Amino acid sequence: MKINIGIVGYGNLGKAVEKILISDPNFNLVAIFSRRMIKSKFNTLVENYNAFLDYKNKIDIMLLCGGSKNDLEPQSEELIKHYDIINTFDNHPKIKNHLDSLNNLAQNSKHVAIACAGWDPGIFSIIRTLFYSISKQLPHTFWGKGISMGHSDAIRQVAHVDDGLEFTIPIDESIKKAKQNLLSESDLKHERICFVSADEKHHKRIEEDIKNIPNYFKGQPTTVNFVSINKIFKLKQNIKHRGIIIDNFFTKNNTSAKLEFSVYMKSNPDFTATIMTMYVYAIKHLQQDNQFGAFTPIDIPIKYLLKEADYNKIFDKIC
Amino acid sequence: MKINIGIVGYGNLGKAVEKILISDPNFNLVAIFSRRMIKSKFNTLVENYNAFLDYKNKIDIMLLCGGSKNDLEPQSEELIKHYDIINTFDNHPKIKNHLDSLNNLAQNSKHVAIACAGWDPGIFSIIRTLFYSISKQLPHTFWGKGISMGHSDAIRQVAHVDDGLEFTIPIDESIKKAKQNLLSESDLKHERICFVSADEKHHKRIEEDIKNIPNYFKGQPTTVNFVSINKIFKLKQNIKHRGIIIDNFFTKNNTSAKLEFSVYMKSNPDFTATIMTMYVYAIKHLQQDNQFGAFTPIDIPIKYLLKEADYNKIFDKIC
Repeated sequence: MKINIGIVGYGNLGKAVEKILISDPNFNLVAIFSRRMIKSKFNTLVENYNAFLDYKNKIDIMLLCGGSKNDLEPQSEELIKHYDIINTFDNHPKIKNHLDSLNNLAQNSKHVAIACAGWDPGIFSIIRTLFYSISKQLPHTFWGKGISMGHSDAIRQVAHVDDGLEFTIPIDESIKKAKQNLLSESDLKHERICFVSADEKHHKRIEEDIKNIPNYFKGQPTTVNFVSINKIFKLKQNIKHRGIIIDNFFTKNNTSAKLEFSVYMKSNPDFTATIMTMYVYAIKHLQQDNQFGAFTPIDIPIKYLLKEADYNKIFDKIC
Repeated sequence: MKINIGIVGYGNLGKAVEKILISDPNFNLVAIFSRRMIKSKFNTLVENYNAFLDYKNKIDIMLLCGGSKNDLEPQSEELIKHYDIINTFDNHPKIKNHLDSLNNLAQNSKHVAIACAGWDPGIFSIIRTLFYSISKQLPHTFWGKGISMGHSDAIRQVAHVDDGLEFTIPIDESIKKAKQNLLSESDLKHERICFVSADEKHHKRIEEDIKNIPNYFKGQPTTVNFVSINKIFKLKQNIKHRGIIIDNFFTKNNTSAKLEFSVYMKSNPDFTATIMTMYVYAIKHLQQDNQFGAFTPIDIPIKYLLKEADYNKIFDKIC
């Protein structure tokens, strides 16, 4: 039986999720919900976001593909009352609160919410937790080269910025140090290259403003390049990304060991969509166990990412 | 409150587990059980294996450190009737049966058994399952350079072999191919270097016998070196090991992605002991959930590898 799914939000991620769902016979994509007037490239039914209640008997799981900054919290809290949901909420300091609210709502409505189901947070959270459990120390995560949504958002909030984005670039020397267990808290791990489009008379002040945004840029090697709005558009097409987690440590018996995990993706939206859609199976398993509430990837047994049939077929080869 | 633990078996792994347990204030190592007459280097109480019933009120969890070939199945099935247990059973084709038997016994006795809690199977199973869930294809695992217990056992079973061991060495060219998604089913992944001690008159026949052991050596590039029994003893001190899992794939949207995981350990017993002891916390969490039965690492949420206090302390940094 096919799993009936709705997509909420039709940006890069929503579009990537749509393509995966329509190419996979396990899924039935019922509709895309959006606040904007949009048209699906694949003729998927498009509904206004506010019509979501009309689909209570037609959709099982809603995949939320909006942004963490404004969309995911309110939409998740609204939709969990009626549907199982998956989101990629990635505002790290707010995750705990988001989970608590969602969990209360999901327990009441007897639904399952899986939050933070992307690559970071998401599968990187699984790996960091695994590494920490083994090494008893925090592993080092490096991101990039790739565009950071959070940092790009921060740039766009600076006064008189027309458009902008940021490439996160890991510092090779710091990766080398991490691999040798020599990286210290004070070592900088990333370089930040910003591209900004704005009226020339604001350039000097904008550059200073960006370099002083706390948490995002302040104290970090940051370069600000002013370019045309067309150049920004072109740069946005670069959707490759990369990440690496390094944990070089000593066992309690004082022998050294090294753990390393890395991912490279040609398309950040496609890779993230791949992860979101795999968590659909986790929802099915949790329902079977009569488990309701809000979960993140570290709360869920890894085997729940597989279809039951796949699990039985490949158990001998993966376990 | 300390967790009361017993160790069963006092080979390399048992000794490494002992050292970890006595150095960690969360654990109380009550006794080591062995069939042999042994003495602990750290003055841990040593009991005959058959005395295990005397400790029903003093020990919560038994860590089974014997070999998969003869010890772990019968001992696990005996001990699970009275204790929660952890083992590192690694005889891949027999895992499913072992789990089924253990699960029945554990459900009856209301205990928790965690089987296959080493590095492979164990954390490698977690990673392979995660990678398969994302890529929908079987990832490639390479082991070594390091001594393979299973292959060394197979050598020692050949007639007139006094002692022997095998180093598994991954073929660099095949790792390169796997990273480029060019490795085919027929490509050989490992080279097998054997060291054997035996009377000279048997050498020719032994070499042929070894090279023809199905599953272990037949059809694989195998070298047999005859050396003295002293040389074998010295080679056994080499306890370094390594492993790598590679998954280079295309998303359903036809964009490429690469996942890679690697581990290096200076001491195979210390690293394995580190993993076994971290699964003690998983047992505590499963008990709190009123979950009984037999589990492997892929059946358990990753956060259960952490002490509750650690989880709350580092949630923001790992999730």
